Amino acid sequence: MNYGVVIKILGNLLTVEALLMIPSLLVSLYYNQYDKKAFLISIFITSILGFIMGKKEETKENIKAKEGLAIVAFGWILASFFGSLPFVLSGSIPSWIDSFFETVSGFTTTGATIVDNVEALPMGILFWRSFTHWIGGMGILVFTIAILPTLGVGGFQIFKVESPGPMPDRIVPKVKDTAKILYTTYFIMTILEIILLLFGGMPLYDAAVHTFGTVGTGGFSIKAASVGAYDSTYIHIIIGIFMILSGVNFSLYYFLFQGKWKEVFKNEELRLYFGIIFSSVILIALNINSEIYKNIGLALRDAFFQVGSIITTTGYATTDFDKWPTFSKSILFLLMFVGGCAGSTGGGLKNIRILVLFKLVKREFSKILHPRAVIPIKTNGEILSNETVVSIASFFVLYIFIFVLGTVFVSLEGVDLVSSSSAVASALGNIGPGFGFVGPIRTFSGFNPINKLVLSLFMLLGRLELFTILALFLPKTWRNEIF
Amino acid sequence: MNYGVVIKILGNLLTVEALLMIPSLLVSLYYNQYDKKAFLISIFITSILGFIMGKKEETKENIKAKEGLAIVAFGWILASFFGSLPFVLSGSIPSWIDSFFETVSGFTTTGATIVDNVEALPMGILFWRSFTHWIGGMGILVFTIAILPTLGVGGFQIFKVESPGPMPDRIVPKVKDTAKILYTTYFIMTILEIILLLFGGMPLYDAAVHTFGTVGTGGFSIKAASVGAYDSTYIHIIIGIFMILSGVNFSLYYFLFQGKWKEVFKNEELRLYFGIIFSSVILIALNINSEIYKNIGLALRDAFFQVGSIITTTGYATTDFDKWPTFSKSILFLLMFVGGCAGSTGGGLKNIRILVLFKLVKREFSKILHPRAVIPIKTNGEILSNETVVSIASFFVLYIFIFVLGTVFVSLEGVDLVSSSSAVASALGNIGPGFGFVGPIRTFSGFNPINKLVLSLFMLLGRLELFTILALFLPKTWRNEIF
Repeated sequence: MNYGVVIKILGNLLTVEALLMIPSLLVSLYYNQYDKKAFLISIFITSILGFIMGKKEETKENIKAKEGLAIVAFGWILASFFGSLPFVLSGSIPSWIDSFFETVSGFTTTGATIVDNVEALPMGILFWRSFTHWIGGMGILVFTIAILPTLGVGGFQIFKVESPGPMPDRIVPKVKDTAKILYTTYFIMTILEIILLLFGGMPLYDAAVHTFGTVGTGGFSIKAASVGAYDSTYIHIIIGIFMILSGVNFSLYYFLFQGKWKEVFKNEELRLYFGIIFSSVILIALNINSEIYKNIGLALRDAFFQVGSIITTTGYATTDFDKWPTFSKSILFLLMFVGGCAGSTGGGLKNIRILVLFKLVKREFSKILHPRAVIPIKTNGEILSNETVVSIASFFVLYIFIFVLGTVFVSLEGVDLVSSSSAVASALGNIGPGFGFVGPIRTFSGFNPINKLVLSLFMLLGRLELFTILALFLPKTWRNEIF
Repeated sequence: MNYGVVIKILGNLLTVEALLMIPSLLVSLYYNQYDKKAFLISIFITSILGFIMGKKEETKENIKAKEGLAIVAFGWILASFFGSLPFVLSGSIPSWIDSFFETVSGFTTTGATIVDNVEALPMGILFWRSFTHWIGGMGILVFTIAILPTLGVGGFQIFKVESPGPMPDRIVPKVKDTAKILYTTYFIMTILEIILLLFGGMPLYDAAVHTFGTVGTGGFSIKAASVGAYDSTYIHIIIGIFMILSGVNFSLYYFLFQGKWKEVFKNEELRLYFGIIFSSVILIALNINSEIYKNIGLALRDAFFQVGSIITTTGYATTDFDKWPTFSKSILFLLMFVGGCAGSTGGGLKNIRILVLFKLVKREFSKILHPRAVIPIKTNGEILSNETVVSIASFFVLYIFIFVLGTVFVSLEGVDLVSSSSAVASALGNIGPGFGFVGPIRTFSGFNPINKLVLSLFMLLGRLELFTILALFLPKTWRNEIF
């Protein structure tokens, strides 16, 4: 392990984080509330440490897989730790563990909260809380599209832009250029949503904060009733559409910009994603309409919002879907695992993996009748290597194993099975709410401190595609070949 | 498709089934109850049809994968249909769908019942009901150890006896010899358990019936309180031990018989199986002891029985484990997926698959740090082909997909999520009881007819290793290359 380069980059990361706290400081100064001091101290501590670590001399220029893993994993953990300073120092969330949970939930764009009385928090703190979603969303875009594929692990190839990519030179991917395109798209979406929400009569502050939660597919709201607090079909639909747009592979927006409509339209992952959304909305709308709503228009509106919110792993709610019939709830539970598209800000397994797994099962059927046949698996017309397919299957296996063992562990808390399992699925998929004890109008505050830390770990695991974080626990990662 | 040979073999199967109804007829004659007429008619109908179908001329000698699949899948469906005749004709279970469900549950050694008042049924009917477990258990041993591996699908290689097998000639597996060894072991276990239960003061009839349910890992009881109706620690322990023994790969008993202790002891699947049982018993005993029992001896006894019952997919109960704390219930839910060992009468995913999947995930970790390394996956010292590993992963994916989509479908019934999901897991894993609505002291009678048929289908799917039944739905299976 080349510690020098790792420490240096982590230092730079902290400096950037300190800078990113400034807007929240400005908000707290504007509203002149008690949280401004907490921001000043947090920015001071974070930037000083960032400066010291950033001074570290690098011993080698080269960053290998090991160093990449350590930077990404520790980067998220460190950022979450220092990001929680304003919560603790302002006294908004007095417990260190609660603050850490809230910040991890923010940066991983999960949106699970331990704040029971969110409307009592100061404006600067609420701004920072939602802003962590926006930062996390951007971070994950760069991480999954630009960094992950270069780590060389088979399964992550799927995050690469398929077929003619945005770069003229496909052999040497220009990480910086890709990042710039992603940033631009992300900025444009942010501005656009804020403007559209302002049109709907939402105050600027509320519009900004909910936009951060939407484009980052986070889900923190400043209202206890989440988006349901805004009694406006227009606002529900705008946020619903932007959630779904944020679950799309961002590279496809670049294709659209280049006029490559055909490629976007033919993208198999996108088709699956919209297909699942469409059929889930219809099934749930029919189910809740016949059992509760008796008004198909309203049923469609709420089904659309909740389906969009869960599949994109945002986690906003316009109604207490925990009171919906079992059929609708089981579809939502299933969507918690599907997640967004690869290269989006959404979490979960990702649609591309579900697609490949379906094709894998289909191939197995063909093999029953033709045992000797060699049938390749293709997505968007390109053959996936056997290694990639095996990696995707392994990812699925690991995801399910962590979900199951995590549920067993969390169930020691004593809450019912649906609550424990949905809390774990929600953390792992970076969604936010679950069912029952962690339903949409409740919070995670009831869990004991150990479960809060375990759920924080699951949020990081889910966000960083499992292997990144788990690799930190491998002794091999720490063996230094030089000594 | 070579229909001639398929019809002929199915005819022979029906003739055998008619013969297998004779013991139940004798029981009903002995007790001189109203069910004897139903058995006479059932035997008559089944044997006549069997005779007619068995007369069919074969057009070709050769049975290929297609014909093998059709024989196995239709064989189980036909046997279940004709096996349900005594229930319907005697009026014990008046509904055709209920009777079919009960018989599928019997032959697949599931043990899920729709009979609400089991103690009111006549003795011959109850004998037949449990005897279907015994027949099914034997059928599945021959199916998985002798027939499946010859179908040539990668993943089923794991059912073959690894390393020096019981046959001197490993290249040409002698199906008949393997079958004979299996039958003998199965018979010995049956006799042994009956004798040991008689020692415990159980009446012969009860001992026989519960032995059928144990060695077949079925779970039908003649008591509403299942094995819990017998207030004897000795009986609980004997049945508990025989359940666990029936979940072991039967080939290993032949090794033991040959004195190959070392190979049995070193068998990785067996170690995992006993490891999971041991740790589950300890964890559950501690949990229920601190929350309910306050008597570690009793807690260990009940934990042992319930863990043995669920992991081997038998489904007997000595207590209403649905009232246990969530932690214990979540472990039991997890065990529903683990199941027995390959080549046992148990269902579920099977321990060998879990083992290979763990190794697959472990390998993926190594690949993060060494992307170019080629690391083979071994079990019991032998390298598994990449094809086998992919097949096992596909099996897992399909199992989870069916479980999830099945739960969504069944949840239309309106019962809660834990009840619907555990009903599906229970059917798919051939267990019997689930939680809540289908808990150990309740039955499946409350489901609507469509769900009863769907759950019957899941029992068959689980029992026949998914692909066998699903391949019937492929149009390719029915395309006749000759025309």
